Amino acid sequence: MLTEPVTSLRFHRLLLTGAAGGLGRELRQRLKRYCDVLRLSDVAPLGEAAEGEELMSAPLQDKAAMQALLKDVDAVIHLGGVSTEQPWQPILEANIVGTYNLYEAARINGVKRVLFASSNHVCGFYKQSEVIGTDAPARPDGLYGLSKAFGEDVARLYHDRFGIETACVRIGSSFPEPRDRRMLASWMSYDDLERLVMAVLTTPVLGYSVIYGISDNKTRWYDNSGAAHVGYRPQDSSEPWRAALEAKQPKLDLNDPAVIYQGGAFVRTGPFDNNA
Amino acid sequence: MLTEPVTSLRFHRLLLTGAAGGLGRELRQRLKRYCDVLRLSDVAPLGEAAEGEELMSAPLQDKAAMQALLKDVDAVIHLGGVSTEQPWQPILEANIVGTYNLYEAARINGVKRVLFASSNHVCGFYKQSEVIGTDAPARPDGLYGLSKAFGEDVARLYHDRFGIETACVRIGSSFPEPRDRRMLASWMSYDDLERLVMAVLTTPVLGYSVIYGISDNKTRWYDNSGAAHVGYRPQDSSEPWRAALEAKQPKLDLNDPAVIYQGGAFVRTGPFDNNA
Amino acid sequence: MLTEPVTSLRFHRLLLTGAAGGLGRELRQRLKRYCDVLRLSDVAPLGEAAEGEELMSAPLQDKAAMQALLKDVDAVIHLGGVSTEQPWQPILEANIVGTYNLYEAARINGVKRVLFASSNHVCGFYKQSEVIGTDAPARPDGLYGLSKAFGEDVARLYHDRFGIETACVRIGSSFPEPRDRRMLASWMSYDDLERLVMAVLTTPVLGYSVIYGISDNKTRWYDNSGAAHVGYRPQDSSEPWRAALEAKQPKLDLNDPAVIYQGGAFVRTGPFDNNA
Amino acid sequence: MLTEPVTSLRFHRLLLTGAAGGLGRELRQRLKRYCDVLRLSDVAPLGEAAEGEELMSAPLQDKAAMQALLKDVDAVIHLGGVSTEQPWQPILEANIVGTYNLYEAARINGVKRVLFASSNHVCGFYKQSEVIGTDAPARPDGLYGLSKAFGEDVARLYHDRFGIETACVRIGSSFPEPRDRRMLASWMSYDDLERLVMAVLTTPVLGYSVIYGISDNKTRWYDNSGAAHVGYRPQDSSEPWRAALEAKQPKLDLNDPAVIYQGGAFVRTGPFDNNA
Amino acid sequence: MLTEPVTSLRFHRLLLTGAAGGLGRELRQRLKRYCDVLRLSDVAPLGEAAEGEELMSAPLQDKAAMQALLKDVDAVIHLGGVSTEQPWQPILEANIVGTYNLYEAARINGVKRVLFASSNHVCGFYKQSEVIGTDAPARPDGLYGLSKAFGEDVARLYHDRFGIETACVRIGSSFPEPRDRRMLASWMSYDDLERLVMAVLTTPVLGYSVIYGISDNKTRWYDNSGAAHVGYRPQDSSEPWRAALEAKQPKLDLNDPAVIYQGGAFVRTGPFDNNA
Amino acid sequence: MLTEPVTSLRFHRLLLTGAAGGLGRELRQRLKRYCDVLRLSDVAPLGEAAEGEELMSAPLQDKAAMQALLKDVDAVIHLGGVSTEQPWQPILEANIVGTYNLYEAARINGVKRVLFASSNHVCGFYKQSEVIGTDAPARPDGLYGLSKAFGEDVARLYHDRFGIETACVRIGSSFPEPRDRRMLASWMSYDDLERLVMAVLTTPVLGYSVIYGISDNKTRWYDNSGAAHVGYRPQDSSEPWRAALEAKQPKLDLNDPAVIYQGGAFVRTGPFDNNA
Repeated sequence: MLTEPVTSLRFHRLLLTGAAGGLGRELRQRLKRYCDVLRLSDVAPLGEAAEGEELMSAPLQDKAAMQALLKDVDAVIHLGGVSTEQPWQPILEANIVGTYNLYEAARINGVKRVLFASSNHVCGFYKQSEVIGTDAPARPDGLYGLSKAFGEDVARLYHDRFGIETACVRIGSSFPEPRDRRMLASWMSYDDLERLVMAVLTTPVLGYSVIYGISDNKTRWYDNSGAAHVGYRPQDSSEPWRAALEAKQPKLDLNDPAVIYQGGAFVRTGPFDNNA
Repeated sequence: MLTEPVTSLRFHRLLLTGAAGGLGRELRQRLKRYCDVLRLSDVAPLGEAAEGEELMSAPLQDKAAMQALLKDVDAVIHLGGVSTEQPWQPILEANIVGTYNLYEAARINGVKRVLFASSNHVCGFYKQSEVIGTDAPARPDGLYGLSKAFGEDVARLYHDRFGIETACVRIGSSFPEPRDRRMLASWMSYDDLERLVMAVLTTPVLGYSVIYGISDNKTRWYDNSGAAHVGYRPQDSSEPWRAALEAKQPKLDLNDPAVIYQGGAFVRTGPFDNNA
Repeated sequence: MLTEPVTSLRFHRLLLTGAAGGLGRELRQRLKRYCDVLRLSDVAPLGEAAEGEELMSAPLQDKAAMQALLKDVDAVIHLGGVSTEQPWQPILEANIVGTYNLYEAARINGVKRVLFASSNHVCGFYKQSEVIGTDAPARPDGLYGLSKAFGEDVARLYHDRFGIETACVRIGSSFPEPRDRRMLASWMSYDDLERLVMAVLTTPVLGYSVIYGISDNKTRWYDNSGAAHVGYRPQDSSEPWRAALEAKQPKLDLNDPAVIYQGGAFVRTGPFDNNA
Repeated sequence: MLTEPVTSLRFHRLLLTGAAGGLGRELRQRLKRYCDVLRLSDVAPLGEAAEGEELMSAPLQDKAAMQALLKDVDAVIHLGGVSTEQPWQPILEANIVGTYNLYEAARINGVKRVLFASSNHVCGFYKQSEVIGTDAPARPDGLYGLSKAFGEDVARLYHDRFGIETACVRIGSSFPEPRDRRMLASWMSYDDLERLVMAVLTTPVLGYSVIYGISDNKTRWYDNSGAAHVGYRPQDSSEPWRAALEAKQPKLDLNDPAVIYQGGAFVRTGPFDNNA
Repeated sequence: MLTEPVTSLRFHRLLLTGAAGGLGRELRQRLKRYCDVLRLSDVAPLGEAAEGEELMSAPLQDKAAMQALLKDVDAVIHLGGVSTEQPWQPILEANIVGTYNLYEAARINGVKRVLFASSNHVCGFYKQSEVIGTDAPARPDGLYGLSKAFGEDVARLYHDRFGIETACVRIGSSFPEPRDRRMLASWMSYDDLERLVMAVLTTPVLGYSVIYGISDNKTRWYDNSGAAHVGYRPQDSSEPWRAALEAKQPKLDLNDPAVIYQGGAFVRTGPFDNNA
Repeated sequence: MLTEPVTSLRFHRLLLTGAAGGLGRELRQRLKRYCDVLRLSDVAPLGEAAEGEELMSAPLQDKAAMQALLKDVDAVIHLGGVSTEQPWQPILEANIVGTYNLYEAARINGVKRVLFASSNHVCGFYKQSEVIGTDAPARPDGLYGLSKAFGEDVARLYHDRFGIETACVRIGSSFPEPRDRRMLASWMSYDDLERLVMAVLTTPVLGYSVIYGISDNKTRWYDNSGAAHVGYRPQDSSEPWRAALEAKQPKLDLNDPAVIYQGGAFVRTGPFDNNA
């Protein structure tokens, strides 16, 4: 069951990329309440178009397809691309070339507002005993985080030169519920995700902003006070799952980099080996 | 209907300047609950003195009158002076000469605490995509903001040299309700205004403090965490008016300086032309 | 009546030093809900051991006794030592030698997490018109505060060299209720104390952290946003006592160092005289 | 004997206000080497016009006269106004009204670069044991410092709104030689003054900048590293006078506010008394 | 004529990429004094190998070739890649894929120190009236700057995860002499370039560092005080060219973005048009 | 051969503690030029008193002896105590109890200025790839560093409460010449030591200051710009020894904590073992 609409502002056409992914499927149903047309894209199957939906398959690395995709769009929620640690080639194509293509397409089509789904893995090498703000420089924990750091810089460039506004949302862990003790800190509920997306789309002036995508969790590593102008106020918390998760993981190995650093297991996995 | 009194502390005599203005009339009824005598001044008519009220007409630029006005006063709520963008001469007289006269009168009469009604226009040239703290340097957006920046410096001087404590309250937009989308960020309810005024008057040690006068709005450009010692906790929000205001102004021109900067229309209006 | 347990995590053996003191007696009953064995130590009498309690009398300055005390302990809540301004000798023995002994014992016994009861008197020479963060350098207001600043540095050393995690909890004023207007800012309820202790013990990664021990008071001098990773969320406030305390102390002498500085009366009392 | 010209850039017409004052007379001879016409103004007599000089008597509080004064001027070196602690009225007229008039005249005449002679008394209430940067907020030590703080805010406003570039030069103590031990820190030689003035006039982009006017003294309270874009490199030092000045003032009273604070005697003198 | 060797430390084999470019040719002759073998690579012709030189042609986008290139190398001076604003495809291949390949090759071959030739265009959107430090976040001014920002993030990742040390040298304008007034601020002499390269190669601990590559120019936008551990002390200055350059460009258009921003003409040129 | 006297100011009686140590013997001959009487103390033999010298043997832990030692003294240069990593007991007695005794003696005898020989080991756990300022919080690397951090806090307390001025001089490595590559960064010549001591003694207002004791070395980890008010300008450098030291230590093990951290070997040695 969805939360109440959080704004009465309506858009004519919103574009949601990565619409077949986990968060994409969730936002697909939520966003249509705020626009006449919800354009959806992915390289994975998107099923049937519901009323008010437009489906387009546009590979991110295909410049022409991307330019077509952003035509007549009011704003973009860019979830598309690789969202886990993977080898360099798919990350290069989808996240690096793809994000460049997205912003070029936005520039050419005059699209002025983008929500860029960045990631906590942009700053995965900060410690779990640190609290970082919206001005924390990138410390990526792998190739995926590196590609998201690149995307934030692309957004910065297109803001400074072309006035395109972006919120780089460094998403923590957005799932139906938190899955381990790390997520007690990093979790964001789907309802809070919707609140955050709509805050980004409707705040009068967004500029170039960085904001962390987490719920109002009791334990936090992130401080969003530098992004108060975005107007995101989470209403959920990981607290109800605390007991169960603490029971499941009563002990943590404090010598494990996955426990020491905010990026969790990403800081020690990935496509790195000596025969790569 | 007024809120519950927020403190049981009582003053013998409080002075409210600018008592005939919009906020002045509102505070007139609220402050009398906290003092034996409420002295009111303005150059505009103040009507009849109610019980417990003293009316005095003291032009701010009249040094002698100001010294009489502050006699036997426990604390001052200084709303007096010009509160909109106007030509230089009235701003000079009321806000620059007037504020100097007020602090000289406080010094001579031994008055030790002042609430100085400063303004968001002291820092109107910060962007609506920025969040500024209580230490943000002045970036006035016109002559009015400039005069308020001057007032803050007067307060600083009289604190450092003579120990007079002041809260410079950078008031956002205090009206019965927010009037446009900008005020979703800058609005302060009258009840919160009262909370803020009484916090300033009753906090044990005020020193020289800057604090923003806004309600607990979802979208904000101001961060009051540096003024937590003042003890102001807003309880209202602009949120109930969001839908109506967004409906009235669904589109904003992001190239308009009045949208880009926090000062709103003040940043592009005022008594500046080439034949001035 | 105790609050609900705030975590389901259980420890085998917790050590509470200073268990016969004011906060110690309070925590004695609360902590036993979270562990199989609660080891208690003090130099003052501890009465009978209840079920699940172990009593040990270990003078802090006795190195061997301290090493025995920390044997087989999962974590330490170190309240032991002098907790008021006193002459140098007892402070030296209990707080300086004692804290060193405690950390040496932790190191030798492999104990990896400590709650160090630091104090607001570590930073007592900041002003009551200032708000300080968790990174505020020590400005001790007397020998007691000095010894707590030393303890924080010991904790830092043992973290950097040996990986022992500590929260230095700069406790404000933890009593059943606030006793004067200063405590409107500095007070911490016993329930919030329990919340804070358990947050420190159960947060996945603590590192070396400083956090202020106060409730969610309206007026505050401390900003805990730098310690959000600890997960302490106070639920109480000094507000219900405001009226009574303001009535008792309607006037404060703003020239009194005890009013000017956060340390209160500590800044002007203590074992300092010219024949010392 | 003058130093070598520090730039080969030439201006058609420079305006030097306050040309009859101490620094004005010094700059009068130095500046003419850099321009075709040096326009000089003061209310005090300026003697005969030398070749390449234009003399104009323009009271700063006379708006029309000021607008005439800035006609056809490439840049302004604004030394005019009161330069010592004085009663409010002359400071108001010359420094507050006068500086406003100057910037209005610059705006109307299209003059785009101003050197505003600010003062160390803008920040006279910092301590002599502190080092402050170019972003130090104003802490004026009297009415003179207050008026200079106002001037800095005027400059800020006219930069943000109208693109007029200003260097606010917080001049220390510019005399032929340092006169007391305080000036070992605050002194600026006349040659360094010239270097600073010409750096301000010729740096490609000045923006709104604050810079301290001191020589390369061994002891300093000011850090100009935030103004490196201005290109001022002092070449003199107070050091040669150290021995003589230390001999003259071997003891300083560390309880004297004039010794404690950077503003020196200004922090405790001025037109403040209880019968003012 | 070369400067005296700045260190007596010798390396067995250094790798210089981009050895056929402007800076590459300059460093080719200078670096051979510090190593037994100087390996040189470029895709452009490198001429004959002199004694002590090894020539290898390794396209940066060729992963296998890069892994061969870094074999048995003590340290890398990575000048290779595109060094001007160009279309996306060559920048993607040489600077993005190429830098990733370089660090992968370093990781696999156990090379532990890299000088990464970054650029002032990483932060080209700061203003010429600002001074930025070594912690200034990227504000790239075009695709070239964007690719260098990416390279800095790659270096950060390989430091945090694999301990490879890098100095990201944000090179200003390194030419035989400064060519325009902008370069009075941004110029670095070839002798200073050599000093900087050798400081980076020989400082005991480099970590992940950012440092600006400029000479000791009088006017500067960059503050290297955060990189004092690198030990770079420039000895040259753009000052001798000042008069000639100021004569050539006596007027600058302060409305031209190329004058306003540090990146110069890069901020308004490049491969951006609406039919791209 | 000594440097020229750096000031003509003279003191009646200076006290030098630790006068039999390495730096003590060096300063003994240098300081006598600046005072009528140089009082020297140590627990080790001091030889014969030269003209103008007073010898007193005062164990630092002997409160009464210390109070006698500071009688009729103008200022103290406190080098006394343990200056290497040692077991807890001697450090406790000489550096902790001793420094407390020294400041108590200063308070009782009205001595108002102290140079406290602190140490780089107060912040030994910062990295050699970091540059820290005079506000860097303590990160001691062992018991010696811990005791010096305590001494800095004692100095802070006696300044805030009793107005005693102190410079905490975090001495790097002061020897006739640098001994290894680490000392290229941390070395201070004896002439610079004298310059620093006399700057501390003669600067008009010292307050509570922290300053690093290093020469003008090319490679540095410390930034003294926050202490410019002290007036210390080093004139020596470790550079002349670079070649010899680099030849002696061409390779450093970057996995060795003694190379990684500023404290050098102190970070991994000392009286810590599991049977302590």
